[in-house]
Amino acid sequence: MAEVIPILKQKADFDECIKKLSELCKGDLHSINTLILEKLDSSVPLIQEIGKYLILSGGKRLRPLLTTSCFHLLNNDSTDTFNHIGLAAAVEFIHAATLLHDDVVDLSKDRRGKLTANEVWGNKTSVLVGDFLFSRSFQLMTKYGNLTTLKILSDTSVIISEGEVLEISNDNNLEMNEDTYFKIINGKTASLFSAACQVGGLIGGAKINQHQALKSFGTNFGMAFQLIDDAIDYSSNSKLMGKNLGDDFKEGKITLPIILAYGRSNDEEKQFWKKVITKTNKEEENFNKARELLFKYNCIEDTLVRANHFADVAIDSLSIFKNNEYKSALIKLIEESIKRLY
Amino acid sequence: MAEVIPILKQKADFDECIKKLSELCKGDLHSINTLILEKLDSSVPLIQEIGKYLILSGGKRLRPLLTTSCFHLLNNDSTDTFNHIGLAAAVEFIHAATLLHDDVVDLSKDRRGKLTANEVWGNKTSVLVGDFLFSRSFQLMTKYGNLTTLKILSDTSVIISEGEVLEISNDNNLEMNEDTYFKIINGKTASLFSAACQVGGLIGGAKINQHQALKSFGTNFGMAFQLIDDAIDYSSNSKLMGKNLGDDFKEGKITLPIILAYGRSNDEEKQFWKKVITKTNKEEENFNKARELLFKYNCIEDTLVRANHFADVAIDSLSIFKNNEYKSALIKLIEESIKRLY
Repeated sequence: MAEVIPILKQKADFDECIKKLSELCKGDLHSINTLILEKLDSSVPLIQEIGKYLILSGGKRLRPLLTTSCFHLLNNDSTDTFNHIGLAAAVEFIHAATLLHDDVVDLSKDRRGKLTANEVWGNKTSVLVGDFLFSRSFQLMTKYGNLTTLKILSDTSVIISEGEVLEISNDNNLEMNEDTYFKIINGKTASLFSAACQVGGLIGGAKINQHQALKSFGTNFGMAFQLIDDAIDYSSNSKLMGKNLGDDFKEGKITLPIILAYGRSNDEEKQFWKKVITKTNKEEENFNKARELLFKYNCIEDTLVRANHFADVAIDSLSIFKNNEYKSALIKLIEESIKRLY
Repeated sequence: MAEVIPILKQKADFDECIKKLSELCKGDLHSINTLILEKLDSSVPLIQEIGKYLILSGGKRLRPLLTTSCFHLLNNDSTDTFNHIGLAAAVEFIHAATLLHDDVVDLSKDRRGKLTANEVWGNKTSVLVGDFLFSRSFQLMTKYGNLTTLKILSDTSVIISEGEVLEISNDNNLEMNEDTYFKIINGKTASLFSAACQVGGLIGGAKINQHQALKSFGTNFGMAFQLIDDAIDYSSNSKLMGKNLGDDFKEGKITLPIILAYGRSNDEEKQFWKKVITKTNKEEENFNKARELLFKYNCIEDTLVRANHFADVAIDSLSIFKNNEYKSALIKLIEESIKRLY
């Protein structure tokens, strides 16, 4: 029987992993943060203000960490000392831009326990400052990257935006299939994880097979990560993860747990799903009933099974790299990211 | 005394100029349109739908025309046969992305006599499809450009978004100075005009002095163009130009005519401006009073004087190029764009 682990410990373990990776990449992380600050500079005060509010609000810098640790993973003798920093900052700017626009699209009011920028400065400003951050990221990648990394990052931006449109096109669509869902979470999370890893490796001189391995590593890690995030929305430790229990449900977002539950429900239960998913104000009672069905049909557990599949592929893809402390830290990071659920 | 020219004739003359330039660049324009259509292709149907609605809605393709005519202006022996097409399409995608986001920010309901995308599909979708178009433009410039053209276009995107934030930061700010206004219209219009010209020339093999000339040409043409646009908002032929009379006024946008009028107004008139500019619902009566003051203090005429200054610089900057049909068409285009006002 599985060991019963207190929830708080799991959260702490994942944070511990990030901290360890940050410690390993300490020098780089400092340079990345310095560059980010420098590039938030603008003659328009409002841009600086919002940029700093958003980017300095205590995010984990997970994506830039992927870039810099994949750079070092290669044990490379690359002469590059700064381009990977520039690309890591570019990746973080893309991420920040998408967060700003996401919060406008989702009408979100808080993120990481702080008011969202759209709540403080309004939607208009968030849209335009998002555009600024996005443009800045292209400036950075033009300056610090090469044609290959530029292609990866611009292709990724297309995939991200396609994923977002696909997601809102499927709001409330209970009959969305799993493939569409995977395409959405690839756009939302996996594609940028993957790009972050690829550009770090490539700028460090990755050979073709290494590049392919990092691409697979990032993509599969991202898929696993988002699956767990989507499951957490229905699990009791969501508050701990900086989300409110049932946020996705309230927004009518169809994620894997719901797709599985709807498919497995009987006619009467399907009627329930149809009735509640399109309601703007979802009552607590309905949320509880939804969770009951999720547990009845093992939907959270099966989401975890899928996440484990992707995590396994991600970990295996690292096998071509020699063992070093970066590799161990990355593997540990994936393992703990999966454990966030329970 | 100045000749009295019917308004309709002026509009026709400008359209005639665009038509002539389109005729000159017929083959290129066809390739640009084909490429644009191809790049609107997406596995997400909604993206295709909105992209086509927006990009195929009968815009003049002014910016791509600048790219391709500046390419040919050089009488070049460049071996490039397609990169200038790709860059022209990239420029049009940036433009389309900014239109989508602008309409969200301005809560606009119609553009060129059609409902705006945000009216049809909602703000969320417009934000995300704008991001898609913007990402597509970076894909195009990565594929068809070089590091110099990439730098120009990514720098331009930063300037555009900074300009937009600067503009909304100054909504209703009657004390905005002329320099800030020039920075705003540079972001809004001149910077992309300039980039369009520069990349066309550079990909055609422009030497340093030619590159500088095209940069100046595009910037100054753009400044003149936007000044006239801003003046048209208060002139009787605004309807003809696809704008509604007083749109800027209603939105509380501070443009040069207002800056000049406010600065020249006496205390009592200043009170009037302060009273009406912050009102959400501006009454017809107030708009008429505002126009009276604009005419009393020659603000429209003086805006035209400024526009003529920029137009003159633009035309003169072309002097280093040998005479050819592209040069004549570009000069004529500027001259007629100025005449749109009366």
